[in-house]
Amino acid sequence: MNLKEVKGVTFVDGGICAAGGFRANGIQCGLAHNPLTATEENSAVANNALPAKKKNDLALIVADRECTAAAVYTTNKVKGAPILVTKEHIKNGIAKAVIVNSVNANTCNADGVEKAEKMCQLVSEETGIDVNDVIVASTGVIGQILPIEPIANGMHELAEGLTYDGNSRAVEAIMTTDTQVKEVAVQFDLGGKTCTMGGMLKGSGMIHPNMATTLTFITTDADISAELLQRALSDVVKITLNRVSVDGDTSTNDMVCVLANGTAGNISVTKENDDFEKFVNALYAVMMNLARKMARDGEGATKLIECICHGADTEKTAETVAKSVITSSLFKAAMFGEDANWGRILCAVGYADADFDINKVDVSIGSDKGVIEVCRNGAGVEFSEEKAKEILGEEEIIINISVGNGAGKAVAWGCDLTYDYVKINGDYRS
Amino acid sequence: MNLKEVKGVTFVDGGICAAGGFRANGIQCGLAHNPLTATEENSAVANNALPAKKKNDLALIVADRECTAAAVYTTNKVKGAPILVTKEHIKNGIAKAVIVNSVNANTCNADGVEKAEKMCQLVSEETGIDVNDVIVASTGVIGQILPIEPIANGMHELAEGLTYDGNSRAVEAIMTTDTQVKEVAVQFDLGGKTCTMGGMLKGSGMIHPNMATTLTFITTDADISAELLQRALSDVVKITLNRVSVDGDTSTNDMVCVLANGTAGNISVTKENDDFEKFVNALYAVMMNLARKMARDGEGATKLIECICHGADTEKTAETVAKSVITSSLFKAAMFGEDANWGRILCAVGYADADFDINKVDVSIGSDKGVIEVCRNGAGVEFSEEKAKEILGEEEIIINISVGNGAGKAVAWGCDLTYDYVKINGDYRS
Repeated sequence: MNLKEVKGVTFVDGGICAAGGFRANGIQCGLAHNPLTATEENSAVANNALPAKKKNDLALIVADRECTAAAVYTTNKVKGAPILVTKEHIKNGIAKAVIVNSVNANTCNADGVEKAEKMCQLVSEETGIDVNDVIVASTGVIGQILPIEPIANGMHELAEGLTYDGNSRAVEAIMTTDTQVKEVAVQFDLGGKTCTMGGMLKGSGMIHPNMATTLTFITTDADISAELLQRALSDVVKITLNRVSVDGDTSTNDMVCVLANGTAGNISVTKENDDFEKFVNALYAVMMNLARKMARDGEGATKLIECICHGADTEKTAETVAKSVITSSLFKAAMFGEDANWGRILCAVGYADADFDINKVDVSIGSDKGVIEVCRNGAGVEFSEEKAKEILGEEEIIINISVGNGAGKAVAWGCDLTYDYVKINGDYRS
Repeated sequence: MNLKEVKGVTFVDGGICAAGGFRANGIQCGLAHNPLTATEENSAVANNALPAKKKNDLALIVADRECTAAAVYTTNKVKGAPILVTKEHIKNGIAKAVIVNSVNANTCNADGVEKAEKMCQLVSEETGIDVNDVIVASTGVIGQILPIEPIANGMHELAEGLTYDGNSRAVEAIMTTDTQVKEVAVQFDLGGKTCTMGGMLKGSGMIHPNMATTLTFITTDADISAELLQRALSDVVKITLNRVSVDGDTSTNDMVCVLANGTAGNISVTKENDDFEKFVNALYAVMMNLARKMARDGEGATKLIECICHGADTEKTAETVAKSVITSSLFKAAMFGEDANWGRILCAVGYADADFDINKVDVSIGSDKGVIEVCRNGAGVEFSEEKAKEILGEEEIIINISVGNGAGKAVAWGCDLTYDYVKINGDYRS
């Protein structure tokens, strides 16, 4: 899929290593239960079996110098132990390293906090970084004791292998049921200085963000205060990651964090000025494109669905409508079937808990193959089923919904619901 | 599946004809697009193809005498035209007939209200019943013009064939993707007089009730005022149909209505006395069992999931938690896979928008094969995976969740998420 352009930024390669001063690595340390191998056992139901190869399961990101840091976490009452530890370590707005494992979420375990602390300590011992400057994250199965031995045994190799172009090894290590690597990096200007920002994300199922989502790590060489970094992140999360739904399930381990090492040489961003706007714009470009990649790689998905709602009285109303549509199981199954069953779109618009006149709702369906109107003023209009089929045959579908004449507008991203979603989740643990 | 016993009532046969004084019939009038035949074309993806037979698509229920009547409707902003017409006809609390078709929902059509009125008029012409005493309902595809000719042509045959044991023909006519007939009837005592109440329901997908659901029709010979009948119905809907979710989609055509003809000879129920309580209890027995049948026959479902939450501070909290679990796609897929992945239960408990201490949550999983505890105080406990597999192999699964020491308790019903759900909904219209 193509990256979506954003004014004022240029896309570059390098993911979390795109910005100078960040080294990364990922290794396969051997945590038990590797979902990418387990699918071998499911061959009876496997139509598109995932590759049965061992993959990296432990990643480390280290900054050359102290960074300002900000994070947003899941609102789920069940919180992974790493989140509790990271919150403590990051509360002074400073961090220097990220350690993260997949396979096991270290959540709902009596010894979870202890194990998460231990992971930070192992990083500290190997790198000399203060234990309180280490961010820790885990993703994978909930409720299984995290074995610390493979992590302890692998830490030396992990730290030894850190390089300024290690982003590919790191991003592989955070994948669970993800089938695609998700990295985005951009360059942008702050007061004549070129700044770089890059991020990586994992997320495929249990995706219905609320104040944050999935595991997302972003690094930048821009100079920005911890307070403004947090403000930028909190704002951008709301219109990017929080507008994706794969299956309506809000994860226990969601976390997004940004590290800014300030080496770009820009005048430090310490108030809400033009530079802050430019920084927010760059962060939006990275996170919006990561969000799109996540939706496209939703568990079992064959299509990215972008739903744009406009004409609402408020942005909140537009957001509620757009999210209602991309969350509807019936709509998602129809998209998989490439069936222009617009009644399901209108049904989901209708049960959205928002204020608008259903008799003023227009709906059109589009893709690279064209756009057709399917509903005007809340009632169906004639359209060519043949053309609809052609449009829905594409991998990126746009649902455009107008609910009136207001200025409120929002975009939400989702995917289709497929046999493979059921396959992947029918026996995730084995 | 077995009916669930309720104290004070005895189950009997006869569905909506169980109570004296109600005749019913159902015919195949030939509305286009019959989903039960359309599946023939989907053989490429059909593992468990539905029977490719023509089924009834038009039903009529007629009471020998005037009835008090009550109804509850969908809260979806998009409302099927029949709902608008029924609301008008029922507002005096009196009705004498129900006409209902499947295949076409008569929703989002410019001429919808006109067609729904026409259906009532056709009934009136054939039976002599006042057009304003006719309840009308439709279910099926949204946004396709309802052809009135097959209904007009079939009306004479439909009315001619009305019998006091016609419930089976009628219930078949309201089915869409339903694979099982859903009827329940009970007898109960009101002041020494034996009263009878029976109901039929359709519903399999687009099930996430909000103040009502699906199409449900209930008849009784009890004597009760329209006001008390409405109060009883509104109360019981909240703890039965509104506690079912198949796929999180609230339909546009949901309606439940009750007709009471008063021929049982009981002292008319006109205030909230003991007899009212008994009537509510009987209505609960009928609607709770219909709700269970609906969940069990959720589109593609192989299992009924009953989630009981107790120990909450309020009933509302317990309801929110129980519904959050049975609505989770990840949990539902795990149930299909017979995988005791309790982390997903705890995750769904955790994102429920309700107030309780996650560290006091206990979870157990049970069925006819036994019960095992899987989580205590928010953390996993050791259990036999072999025993869990045996328990989850059954068709009726009970998830028992304790969230504290409060008196609030609620039950919700759902089903598993399967390949067939995707198959059924990938191309519903063709």
